[in-house]
Amino acid sequence: MNIPQITSPRVVIIGGGFGGIALAKKLAKREVQVVMLDKHNYHTFQPLLYQVSTGGLEPDSIAYPIRKIVSRYPNFYFRLANVTNIDPDAKKIETDIGPLKYDYLVLATGSKTNFFGNKEIEINSMIMKTVPDALNLRSLILQNFEKALLTDSLDEQDSLMNFVIVGGGPTGVELAGALAEIKKGILPKDYPDLDTRRAQINIVQSSERVLDGMSEIASQKAEEFLEKMGVNIWKDTLVTGYDGDIVSTNTDLTFRTATLIWAAGVEGDLIDGLKTSECLMPGNRLKVNAYNQVTHYKSIYAIGDIACMASKENPRGHPMVAQVAIQQGTHLGENLLKILAKKNDLKPFVYKDKGTMATIGRNKAVVDLKHWKFQGFFAWFVWMFVHLLSLIGFRNRAIVFVNWVYNYIRFDRAARLIIRPYKKELQIKNIKVKTKEPAKVTTT
Amino acid sequence: MNIPQITSPRVVIIGGGFGGIALAKKLAKREVQVVMLDKHNYHTFQPLLYQVSTGGLEPDSIAYPIRKIVSRYPNFYFRLANVTNIDPDAKKIETDIGPLKYDYLVLATGSKTNFFGNKEIEINSMIMKTVPDALNLRSLILQNFEKALLTDSLDEQDSLMNFVIVGGGPTGVELAGALAEIKKGILPKDYPDLDTRRAQINIVQSSERVLDGMSEIASQKAEEFLEKMGVNIWKDTLVTGYDGDIVSTNTDLTFRTATLIWAAGVEGDLIDGLKTSECLMPGNRLKVNAYNQVTHYKSIYAIGDIACMASKENPRGHPMVAQVAIQQGTHLGENLLKILAKKNDLKPFVYKDKGTMATIGRNKAVVDLKHWKFQGFFAWFVWMFVHLLSLIGFRNRAIVFVNWVYNYIRFDRAARLIIRPYKKELQIKNIKVKTKEPAKVTTT
Repeated sequence: MNIPQITSPRVVIIGGGFGGIALAKKLAKREVQVVMLDKHNYHTFQPLLYQVSTGGLEPDSIAYPIRKIVSRYPNFYFRLANVTNIDPDAKKIETDIGPLKYDYLVLATGSKTNFFGNKEIEINSMIMKTVPDALNLRSLILQNFEKALLTDSLDEQDSLMNFVIVGGGPTGVELAGALAEIKKGILPKDYPDLDTRRAQINIVQSSERVLDGMSEIASQKAEEFLEKMGVNIWKDTLVTGYDGDIVSTNTDLTFRTATLIWAAGVEGDLIDGLKTSECLMPGNRLKVNAYNQVTHYKSIYAIGDIACMASKENPRGHPMVAQVAIQQGTHLGENLLKILAKKNDLKPFVYKDKGTMATIGRNKAVVDLKHWKFQGFFAWFVWMFVHLLSLIGFRNRAIVFVNWVYNYIRFDRAARLIIRPYKKELQIKNIKVKTKEPAKVTTT
Repeated sequence: MNIPQITSPRVVIIGGGFGGIALAKKLAKREVQVVMLDKHNYHTFQPLLYQVSTGGLEPDSIAYPIRKIVSRYPNFYFRLANVTNIDPDAKKIETDIGPLKYDYLVLATGSKTNFFGNKEIEINSMIMKTVPDALNLRSLILQNFEKALLTDSLDEQDSLMNFVIVGGGPTGVELAGALAEIKKGILPKDYPDLDTRRAQINIVQSSERVLDGMSEIASQKAEEFLEKMGVNIWKDTLVTGYDGDIVSTNTDLTFRTATLIWAAGVEGDLIDGLKTSECLMPGNRLKVNAYNQVTHYKSIYAIGDIACMASKENPRGHPMVAQVAIQQGTHLGENLLKILAKKNDLKPFVYKDKGTMATIGRNKAVVDLKHWKFQGFFAWFVWMFVHLLSLIGFRNRAIVFVNWVYNYIRFDRAARLIIRPYKKELQIKNIKVKTKEPAKVTTT
C-alpha cells in the first residue's frame, strides 16, 4: 500500500467517523505512525444527513475531507480503501488497494443499516446512512412529486405522495418533521397544479413511543409536535414487508407508498477475519473490555458503534451514538500513548452522558440533560447551537449557519435539486452484487 | 402531459437556461399559458461550473430550482422532460412524458459539447457542460491523486497527475487557473507523501492565442498569468486523438495523461423534427430572423446558443454566451406579448455587447469592455462582483460569497469530496446507448 516503514509503531485506524477522527487527533505529533483507511475521502456528520435528504443542506456543509484533518500531522497517512479482511495472526489487513501490516489495529467502522434479514425491504427501501444515500433519497422525493404530476390516477398520486418512515428514533423523527415542513411550506408553491395537501407522512414505530431512548416527557412532547405538524404516528407496529408498493405490518395496517424509508435499526459494520465465536455480541458488535480491546485479540481495539462494552450497568453496551464514539476515540488515544510509552497505568473507559436531543421542526425540539429536561423553542435553539459547534471547521459552520438562517426566514430549502436521478434498478443491482461476495461474518 | 387547456394561448419553452428563464420572466402575469420543459429540475449558472469541478463550490450555490422561479406565477407550468421530437405541422412536441400541443414554441435548448465526430475522444474525455459533468470531473481529479499514491511507477504517477485541457476559451483558461491553484495550495498539504510538484496542467489551443474571442491584450495578459502559475500553453495545436492514455496532436507533440478535459467547442443542442435543410447553420444552430423566428416556421422561435441570427455584421451569428441568451429571451418576451396582443410593431433584436471577462486565479482576471480593457486585481474584483450579482437569489449569492471569502483567506477549496466515484465504464455505456437512439438531425 506504499506506506513507508518507520521505526515508530504503526496504528491502523479503519474508519474516519467520529471515533476514528477523535482517536487520530489524540495521536497527533507523537512517536507513532498513524494510517487511517476509509471508503470515503470525507468524514460525515451523520446527525445532519436528514437535512441533506430534504434539500436543506448540501453535502459539503456536513462532510469534511479527511485529508484536511490528518495531513496536518507528520507520520499520518490516509488511504481511500475498502478493508476486506483482518489476519490477526499475521497482524495484517487485506484491502482493495493491497495488504497492510499493523502493530495496533483500531476498528472504528461504525454501523450499517440493519434490515433484520428482510431482503425484500432491503431492495425496495431507502436508507440514510451515507451522503450518497441521503442524496438518493433527496432525488427520489423530488422525482415522486414530478411523477405525481403526470398521472390522473388519484391512487398513484397518493402512493407517490405518501412517505412511510420505519423507526421512530431521532433519524425517523427528524426526517418526518422536515418532510412535514416541506409539505406545508414548499409543496403548495412548487406544485400549484397538484393537491399536495394529500401528501402523507407516517412514522411506524415498533415500541409504544417515539424516541424511546429518551425520557417519557421528551417522547410525549415529540409526538405532540409531530401530530400538530400533521405526521401520522403508528406505535406498537412492526413493518413486515414492502414489495415496492404495499407496506405490510404485523397488524391489519397496510400502506400504499412509493417511498419507504428504513430507519429502524443499525448493526455493527463488521470486517471478515475475526473469530466471532469469541467476540461477537448481539447487533453484530464486537465485545470489548473497558480499554476497548476486542476480546481475545491483544492488538485489536474497537471504538464507537462497532464496539460493545458490556458491563453490569450496560449489559448491552453503550448506545450507538456519536458521543460514545468520540469519547472512546479520545480515551483510547490516551491509553495507546501510554502503551506506546510502555506505561502501565491504563484507565478504564467511563462514559459521560452529556444528554440527548432531537429536533422536530422550527422552534420545536426536545432535550434530555441529566438533571434538566426541556422542550420547545429553547430546546430547538440549544439543538442548533450544539450541532453548529459540533461541525468540523469554521467554514462548514458558516455555510450551515447561512443556510439555516435562510431556511428559517424564508421557510425554504434551496437544494431541492435532482442532480443524479435515483434509479431503483441500480440499487437492486448493487444489493445483488453484494450478496455475491464471500459470506460475511454476520451470515456464518 | 396533464397541462390544463385554457383559453389563453400556450407558449412552450424548451430549456430553463439563461434564455428560457429570461423569457419566462417577461411573460409572467400575462394572458398566456407558459409551459417550461427541461431535462433538469434546476437552472445551471454555467460560468461557475469550473468551480464545482475544482471543489470550490457545491452545486446548490450555482444551481437554482426552476420551480422556484416559474411557480410564482399563475398559468406557469414546469415539467421535468426530455423533448424527443417536434411536429411543426401538428404544432405538437413529443417528450418522454407524453406529447404536448403548443401555440408558440421557443427552443432554448442551448448547446452541447462538440467532439467534431471524434468518438474516441468523446468516450475517453471529460466535459463540463452540466452539474453532473462537473461533479464527475471533481471526483476524477481527486481519484487520480488517491490512485497516484498507490503506484511506484513514476510514469503512471505522472500520467495521473497530468491534466490536459483542450480549448483555450474562458472555460479552459478558468479551469487551468483553478487547477494551478490547487496544485500550489492544496496538493502539497493533502498529499505530503506524493511529489505533487510533478503535477502538470496543459492547455492545448488550436489558434494562436488563448481567449481568442477577447482582445489581444487580454489574451497576452491571460497567458502571462497562466505561465506564472505554472500552466503550460500549447498554441496552434489541434488534438487529434485520445485513447484514454496518450493524447495525439497534429504536430509531434503528445501527452500521456489519465485526464483529458475537452473544452474545445460546442454545438447547438438540436431536437429532431425540423426540416434542417431549410434552417440549419454551421455548428448545428438554427437560422433565425431578427425576431428570433426560426426560418420556415411561423410559430417556432429559437434563442441563445441554439439560435443563429446571421447578419452582415455577424455572418456567423452572435457569440454563444449567456448575455446573448438573456437579451434574446427578454427581447422575444416583449415581442411575443405584442404578437399575443395582436400588435404589429415588433422590434428586431439588437445585441448590446456588455463586454467579456475571464478569471485566471486569485487577483488575476481580464476584462474587455467596449472602451476600456483592464487586467489584474481590479479586473478580478469586477469579475467576482458581476458573477455574484448574476446569480439567481439572495441565498445563492450569500453561499458563494462565504465560500469565496473562505477560499481566498485560507487558500482552500472545501468541497473536495468524492461522493460518487467516477467510473469510465458508465460513461462508455451512456455514449453507446446514445448512439443507438434514432439518428439526430446532425447526423442526417
